[in-house]
Amino acid sequence: MGFRHVVLFKWKSDSTSEQRDAAIEALRQWGRDAEQYGALTFGTDAGLAEGNWDTAVVVDLPDRDAYLAYAADERHQKMIAEYIRPILAERAAVQHET
Amino acid sequence: MGFRHVVLFKWKSDSTSEQRDAAIEALRQWGRDAEQYGALTFGTDAGLAEGNWDTAVVVDLPDRDAYLAYAADERHQKMIAEYIRPILAERAAVQHET
Repeated sequence: MGFRHVVLFKWKSDSTSEQRDAAIEALRQWGRDAEQYGALTFGTDAGLAEGNWDTAVVVDLPDRDAYLAYAADERHQKMIAEYIRPILAERAAVQHET
Repeated sequence: MGFRHVVLFKWKSDSTSEQRDAAIEALRQWGRDAEQYGALTFGTDAGLAEGNWDTAVVVDLPDRDAYLAYAADERHQKMIAEYIRPILAERAAVQHET
């Protein structure tokens, strides 16, 4: 049994490619910082389907408590506030046991 | 390098628990049928965060072509038409290289 956090982002249509690139780079850095909690995988949509969102993040953690610690981490909150939220049009998330 | 398909569902607020359970069971069956393409993991939201969606599906495939075959599979299309679409309020998806 483990615990998985899945989140999808759709960026604002008026966000710049520099802002999007910076968000991806911030996610990359956060993935390294978050290794203490679990394994973070993310990626940018490959453009195969109409209506897709922009970016997916999947985090595999040992348990629910590790997720709560991951979510509350100050570096995580700072990354979201600085790089994600300013260009965020929509966010959808599910956390579930695996 | 591999390829990941991430999809989140939000069910209609007037869907019944029987319909939702049937959709989850259909996803479970489809996960077994889809083993020829890759590894499918899914789960129902644990209820830790306000505003979360209901169900997450993550499929890890060897490459983009395997995803296209997975997506087009007739059993997949039938499962979506019979169990997912009737109770679907919102869907968000991203496919990306890993």
